[in-house]
Amino acid sequence: MTLLHTIYLIAIAAEAASGALMGMRRRMDLFGLCVVGTVTALGGGTIRDLILGHYPLGWVAHPEYLAFTVGAAIVAALLARRLDRLKTAFLWMDALGLVAFTVIGCDIAEQAGASIVVVILMGMTTGVFGGLLRDILCNQVPLVLRRDLYATVSLVTGMLYVGLQHAGVGAGLATGVAIGIGFALRMLAIRFALALPVLEANTSSFDDELDERH
Amino acid sequence: MTLLHTIYLIAIAAEAASGALMGMRRRMDLFGLCVVGTVTALGGGTIRDLILGHYPLGWVAHPEYLAFTVGAAIVAALLARRLDRLKTAFLWMDALGLVAFTVIGCDIAEQAGASIVVVILMGMTTGVFGGLLRDILCNQVPLVLRRDLYATVSLVTGMLYVGLQHAGVGAGLATGVAIGIGFALRMLAIRFALALPVLEANTSSFDDELDERH
Amino acid sequence: MTLLHTIYLIAIAAEAASGALMGMRRRMDLFGLCVVGTVTALGGGTIRDLILGHYPLGWVAHPEYLAFTVGAAIVAALLARRLDRLKTAFLWMDALGLVAFTVIGCDIAEQAGASIVVVILMGMTTGVFGGLLRDILCNQVPLVLRRDLYATVSLVTGMLYVGLQHAGVGAGLATGVAIGIGFALRMLAIRFALALPVLEANTSSFDDELDERH
Repeated sequence: MTLLHTIYLIAIAAEAASGALMGMRRRMDLFGLCVVGTVTALGGGTIRDLILGHYPLGWVAHPEYLAFTVGAAIVAALLARRLDRLKTAFLWMDALGLVAFTVIGCDIAEQAGASIVVVILMGMTTGVFGGLLRDILCNQVPLVLRRDLYATVSLVTGMLYVGLQHAGVGAGLATGVAIGIGFALRMLAIRFALALPVLEANTSSFDDELDERH
Repeated sequence: MTLLHTIYLIAIAAEAASGALMGMRRRMDLFGLCVVGTVTALGGGTIRDLILGHYPLGWVAHPEYLAFTVGAAIVAALLARRLDRLKTAFLWMDALGLVAFTVIGCDIAEQAGASIVVVILMGMTTGVFGGLLRDILCNQVPLVLRRDLYATVSLVTGMLYVGLQHAGVGAGLATGVAIGIGFALRMLAIRFALALPVLEANTSSFDDELDERH
Repeated sequence: MTLLHTIYLIAIAAEAASGALMGMRRRMDLFGLCVVGTVTALGGGTIRDLILGHYPLGWVAHPEYLAFTVGAAIVAALLARRLDRLKTAFLWMDALGLVAFTVIGCDIAEQAGASIVVVILMGMTTGVFGGLLRDILCNQVPLVLRRDLYATVSLVTGMLYVGLQHAGVGAGLATGVAIGIGFALRMLAIRFALALPVLEANTSSFDDELDERH
């Protein structure tokens, strides 16, 4: 549990940082950065706990995590002022949170006795949802729905974590391998613009009434 | 139960297809289409189950439905490549899912012992929410908040389903009538641009600071 | 309890009105206004109850509140036609709902035995979330993430409500003081464009791929 607890702290710090960085892009004030950072950090676990009926929620039972995420958001915002390429820092933090939370989510679902499909899906949900909420709050096209293998990385990470343990590998090693390979895969996908195939189709019929955003 | 189970499969397949088609409009990759399709198909029931405290959630207890929605999304995406008017297919699938899920939602709420108002509201929520999540994920103005009687059709469908059964009509016939009339009404509303009245007011005072989308 | 019940009715009426007014800006039809009004009015309490696992949800147990919010939305829409400055009415209603719901949310969380940090956070969530859902549905940048101290006002209101009672002040007086000062603070923040500091940073690296809204 100690390793997973450490991974959890890393995960929420990274997600909080990604939220704060995205918030700075939207010129949010300090409170807004803390809100977005906290929502990004705790959103994935909250959705997973709601879906599994897993009460009380993690941060309701341990509100000290709220202080941790707020602190991480503020630190990230202060450090960000010195960076030239905020986007790189953002993508690194988001990727770390993605894979770490995928492992955390799989583990919680396993403890709750879910089937293997749901375990991997809960891992993906936990990994992806915080960033999704961040992107919606900040009015961004959600990263998870763009190219660069975002959800695929989460799926691979979850499958590695679950699969390695089923093959007899210890939890600690499975955690490290899954997170390491998942993070590397996401970095490669960003660097080389890897993508799954896009099925082309004639979507011109959509481009009238439905296109009025407002 | 067999009829409702069949209706359920039809509903999630239709919603998954509508999600995949909307995703193709956003040039999403294959995984993105599967994600949007699954969220659209299972989102309505998930929100309803969360609101009613109805654990475990349907697809957590029966993860085979996830495979079904992913399959429906992929099939829809492959077939879409041959269509000229994707928008029409999209609207048909969305309408079918809307009315079918309204009936499903009413039924689940009735079994949970909810009052008649909440039953109809849960039907509407189940019918409408999947598409709403799809539209938000795909950065569309939600269909439910535009013209063409979207939520009204769901309300009428729910009222028919509940009202007919209260009048002694059997569940099977009530299901068929409610879905049939609801679907036809939605098609008519789209074709003839039917709409409820829009209350006009002087909204010019909004058009300054609040209008900055970003 | 009678005072809190009255505050609750004021809160949901105000939030429903703010939702209807924002919906009129989007030229929604009558049903759309009722939907947005109801979601805005009941959304904050719903999220809080889901997070606390507090079943059945308030409006599921008391569906008469749905009729109340729908009525408030319709009345607001009808009265709005006579106003020149809808935005002012909107901001007043939103502010009243914000502070009133913050107090309600704190109270519910206290009754549920939550720690003081979670009590204040649940107050803020209840106060802020309805408006957040309204803004997302209406495709607005959420008010809570803009300037003018929106979430800060909710935090101050919650801290006053909880702090005064811990200092021995009666619930009724604490309610009135917290709501009054919170409302006044929000009005001042809007009038004088008060804001928390915005941490500036070089965000130009974001302005390429991530900026494609669609």
